[in-house]
Amino acid sequence: MDTPDDPEDPMPQTRDTNRRIVLANRPKGRPDDDSLRLETGPVPKAGAGEMLLRTVWLSLDPYMRGRMDDAKSYAAPVELGGVMTGQVVAEVVTSDVDGFAPGDHVLAGSGWQDWAVLDGSQVMNLGRDPAHPSWHLGILGMPGFTAHAGLLNIGEPKPGETVVVAAATGPVGATVGQIAKIRGCRAVGVAGGAEKCAHAVEVLGFDACIDHRSDDFEAQLAAACPEGIDVYFENVGGRTLYAVLPLLNPFARVPVCGMVAWYNLSTLPDGPDRGPQILGTLLRQKVKMQGFIIFDTFGPTEHAAFLKDMTGWLQEGKVRYREQVVEGLEAAPDALLDLLEGRNFGKMVVRVG
Amino acid sequence: MDTPDDPEDPMPQTRDTNRRIVLANRPKGRPDDDSLRLETGPVPKAGAGEMLLRTVWLSLDPYMRGRMDDAKSYAAPVELGGVMTGQVVAEVVTSDVDGFAPGDHVLAGSGWQDWAVLDGSQVMNLGRDPAHPSWHLGILGMPGFTAHAGLLNIGEPKPGETVVVAAATGPVGATVGQIAKIRGCRAVGVAGGAEKCAHAVEVLGFDACIDHRSDDFEAQLAAACPEGIDVYFENVGGRTLYAVLPLLNPFARVPVCGMVAWYNLSTLPDGPDRGPQILGTLLRQKVKMQGFIIFDTFGPTEHAAFLKDMTGWLQEGKVRYREQVVEGLEAAPDALLDLLEGRNFGKMVVRVG
Repeated sequence: MDTPDDPEDPMPQTRDTNRRIVLANRPKGRPDDDSLRLETGPVPKAGAGEMLLRTVWLSLDPYMRGRMDDAKSYAAPVELGGVMTGQVVAEVVTSDVDGFAPGDHVLAGSGWQDWAVLDGSQVMNLGRDPAHPSWHLGILGMPGFTAHAGLLNIGEPKPGETVVVAAATGPVGATVGQIAKIRGCRAVGVAGGAEKCAHAVEVLGFDACIDHRSDDFEAQLAAACPEGIDVYFENVGGRTLYAVLPLLNPFARVPVCGMVAWYNLSTLPDGPDRGPQILGTLLRQKVKMQGFIIFDTFGPTEHAAFLKDMTGWLQEGKVRYREQVVEGLEAAPDALLDLLEGRNFGKMVVRVG
Repeated sequence: MDTPDDPEDPMPQTRDTNRRIVLANRPKGRPDDDSLRLETGPVPKAGAGEMLLRTVWLSLDPYMRGRMDDAKSYAAPVELGGVMTGQVVAEVVTSDVDGFAPGDHVLAGSGWQDWAVLDGSQVMNLGRDPAHPSWHLGILGMPGFTAHAGLLNIGEPKPGETVVVAAATGPVGATVGQIAKIRGCRAVGVAGGAEKCAHAVEVLGFDACIDHRSDDFEAQLAAACPEGIDVYFENVGGRTLYAVLPLLNPFARVPVCGMVAWYNLSTLPDGPDRGPQILGTLLRQKVKMQGFIIFDTFGPTEHAAFLKDMTGWLQEGKVRYREQVVEGLEAAPDALLDLLEGRNFGKMVVRVG
């Protein structure tokens, strides 16, 4: 990634230039400095039936790693040389689209760039002055919806059950844990490092949070789940999954939302082959394991239920939300790497303009 | 296993002696000649509220391998020195139990022995002269119910979809394929050898059946599923599972009923670790994979639906059923090994008396 020499003095967003971050090379394994490239070009012009958007906030999310590969994935890969995919909160600058006026804030999928021209399809108007614009990229947006719909519709937690979730201070995991508590469950988090674990317990209200970097992680997780695990909200894979399997109770449910620990694999890891352990656990314990992609698997009914619940919980102070703000579009590539390797703390958003 | 010197002249069932096959040693991996032992003893005496049963047919099923281990499994393991678990069709010889008279045939879980004394609990009366007594161990019993409930309730096949099942000439697989056809699906079987594959297509009505011993098994399976796989009824694991994963369609369903290819593992196999491939497929394709144990997962509602459907299909000639009859209790241990290694052809039942 080409970045300015002095990161303390980021290039500002201007009316004259569109900075965009494009996929320069498909990474093999971990993305590196050559994977993404900053380009500049003219600000696009809005025509009839279009609007010009100025990006204010860009969301960084683990799924973006998958879009850098050419393989069959959730969705179409980003093309080589194409602007990186991403959800943004933007401000409408000019508009020839009904229902959108200059000054409105919108939620759009216009990606890693300063400016974009869109028609009104797939754009949600957040109004002129939303209270927390960036929250629509997190707790009120895709990550929040992912946590709510995946946990409640696939995980089906019942009061008194034990719910385990990794990345417990990330936007999905933190929300899963807090909803589990609201539903009367024991919530056990997994996170990297003492600071995150303390946050999960003290701020988010998890009953326990285990540091996956501990040598005796498996034993600590077992001790934190004395009655086994009824719901494992899977978003990491790797060591955490393999520590969870022996603890799953009969009829446990495993919504599979992500596997960030494995996103940078370019080949399958060394053995042994855990396939027999995974299938054997499903069989003996009669476990349901179900993958989902939020906007493919769930629709307007689940989205309405999410917004109703989450808006109420936020107003009542029952759900806490933490963001990590990255300053400047040019800092986004390194921040994505941090995210993929667990160095973020809270929902990562980039302040673009 | 101690067997008579001359297998052509099996020891007959007599009124004076109870032959029983007990677990002599827990096998490490594949069971061998020392795993099971034939013992003889007196015929047990029925007391008040009990009945004496003479075993007529003994069922052999893959789950029996799991009961030989001490590990956490479906159900309690067989104790060392204890009679091997198994379902039988037996004849009532004497009875002090209401609803059971001498001459009645019953379905019971009295295991690998000539004689048993039971009270009436967990015993189903099949009447004095059932048309096909041994069918209650197969197409009308646990394997048939497993196929019906697992396919319809977890697999949820829709007309036009592709259903794949291994062990396609076994009692579960054959039934899965035939129900899939009845429901308007494309049914693709996997079996070991040309003879079984021909039977699956020509007699059972599968659209295709692939020999898993072929060098190009994976390519043949892909060619037989030109529109991908919507339901994979998992009963083997191993190479078949790994050939299926890349072919699964979005929102595919995978009922996990067994993994006979892996039952004899004593340790996890060499790598690579397929865990990321399994989880990644669930995630990208939004697949549901759900293990089930027939009598734990399903209840009277599903059982009644099964009996109604299957009785009707058999009467209408829509479902075909093949048995492999093993002669004599003393031949059961070797027959179980054959079953675990795919050398059976049809539902294995032992004619005990």
